[in-house]
Amino acid sequence: MSKVTVDNLKAFIGGSPFIRFLGLEIESADAEAGTLSMKMPMRPELERSGGTGQVHGGPIASLIDTVGDFAVILKVGAPVPTINFRTDYLRPAGGDYLVATAKVRRAGRTVAVVDIDVVDPEGRLCAVGRGCYGSAAG
Amino acid sequence: MSKVTVDNLKAFIGGSPFIRFLGLEIESADAEAGTLSMKMPMRPELERSGGTGQVHGGPIASLIDTVGDFAVILKVGAPVPTINFRTDYLRPAGGDYLVATAKVRRAGRTVAVVDIDVVDPEGRLCAVGRGCYGSAAG
Amino acid sequence: MSKVTVDNLKAFIGGSPFIRFLGLEIESADAEAGTLSMKMPMRPELERSGGTGQVHGGPIASLIDTVGDFAVILKVGAPVPTINFRTDYLRPAGGDYLVATAKVRRAGRTVAVVDIDVVDPEGRLCAVGRGCYGSAAG
Amino acid sequence: MSKVTVDNLKAFIGGSPFIRFLGLEIESADAEAGTLSMKMPMRPELERSGGTGQVHGGPIASLIDTVGDFAVILKVGAPVPTINFRTDYLRPAGGDYLVATAKVRRAGRTVAVVDIDVVDPEGRLCAVGRGCYGSAAG
Repeated sequence: MSKVTVDNLKAFIGGSPFIRFLGLEIESADAEAGTLSMKMPMRPELERSGGTGQVHGGPIASLIDTVGDFAVILKVGAPVPTINFRTDYLRPAGGDYLVATAKVRRAGRTVAVVDIDVVDPEGRLCAVGRGCYGSAAG
Repeated sequence: MSKVTVDNLKAFIGGSPFIRFLGLEIESADAEAGTLSMKMPMRPELERSGGTGQVHGGPIASLIDTVGDFAVILKVGAPVPTINFRTDYLRPAGGDYLVATAKVRRAGRTVAVVDIDVVDPEGRLCAVGRGCYGSAAG
Repeated sequence: MSKVTVDNLKAFIGGSPFIRFLGLEIESADAEAGTLSMKMPMRPELERSGGTGQVHGGPIASLIDTVGDFAVILKVGAPVPTINFRTDYLRPAGGDYLVATAKVRRAGRTVAVVDIDVVDPEGRLCAVGRGCYGSAAG
Repeated sequence: MSKVTVDNLKAFIGGSPFIRFLGLEIESADAEAGTLSMKMPMRPELERSGGTGQVHGGPIASLIDTVGDFAVILKVGAPVPTINFRTDYLRPAGGDYLVATAKVRRAGRTVAVVDIDVVDPEGRLCAVGRGCYGSAAG
């Protein structure tokens, strides 16, 4: 049973200089379903190569890692670390923002496994992530 | 036979707003051996949580992705995209900078596979990466 | 446009001593949707530890790799190699058989990315895979 | 401090129908260094495609998973489960046997991370694995 609310997640964001730099915002959340969507607005420092308007892979991986982690936190009700994660880039990612949607596939006794899809403003799937996080689901 | 030099890599860095933001610098490079080391200096925006002095996992994953990619570029002599990569976090990473060392394990006809180790200033292994990149090795 | 039919997949199975050993059977297939389900019946040699009735992780990873590959083959219409894949074990897997369902997330010019879920006869999710394969999708 | 000996690993092999099927044998082991090498002899059922003499990717992934797990067991002194692992295939793998060498990169409080290299009898690197396992290193 989660004791972590969306307001708590917002406080985590506020307390993290790097997540503030990324400008992440919560779009929707469902603790019971284990789903969470967050938006990352484009900003000049995130560009892959000057003038392309495309986001570098690093911020996309950072977005995947963070949204997956927050989905587990919301689900299990406690801060948990990322253990490892995989990022697959599917298409160049451009536009004014990206949206990552995480779905907790399993929150076990010691680890949780999460899938994360990243889409551009046109809804095209630009990257997918899969992460393994600590768990407190007991 | 590589036609990409360390000076070309520096030009790539200069042309990438995100890599400039990360402040990555080349420490050492050996195109034939397929090895490359780069340093990422700490800066306030990279902090995981305010006041911890620890780097967020996102910049570490970004460092892994980039150094692995550059090692392949140096080895095969042409720009190549990241296809996918895995990041395992081993320890909280703090200190004035991190150093990532990439080693190309195999550059085949279509893909290259690279291992990346990330250490802190005391030489402690903080994270490991493994990436799959495009290849032009022929 | 796929020129590979389910009968072709059955011929691949027949021509592969290891897949024959695993006893894989096609449950359902949709080339256009990029989905494929295959069943792996339990047999004594697959047991993890004698008397547990649980399948060793190795056959589960083999099932994931193979079903993902076959889903791409069906989608793109040509044999393709596995480049790399990740397996996450979520629960001990027992029962008379396992079913793996693959979904091609993206078949690009050079690589395809596939998600694979493995369930036991009660429908419990026992493992998830994500694989990167060659592609001939053009 | 490990209480698991090479003889204990041999007993685990003897108690696992699937590992017996694979015919895995311990080549060398160093608990303190966290390294372990095991050999997998070719047998007809492991063939990828009839008449090629090449091993299917499934047994290679199984070998990677198992040798990584055993390296952690030897290091931390207790049986631990595989949490997840990645396999990258680098070359077709043929010959009379394959040898996998695992190196524990980090055995932390809750998880251990291991690298596994697979070579053929000529010493060519055919596949690399990276696995995350439970840990009892305390």
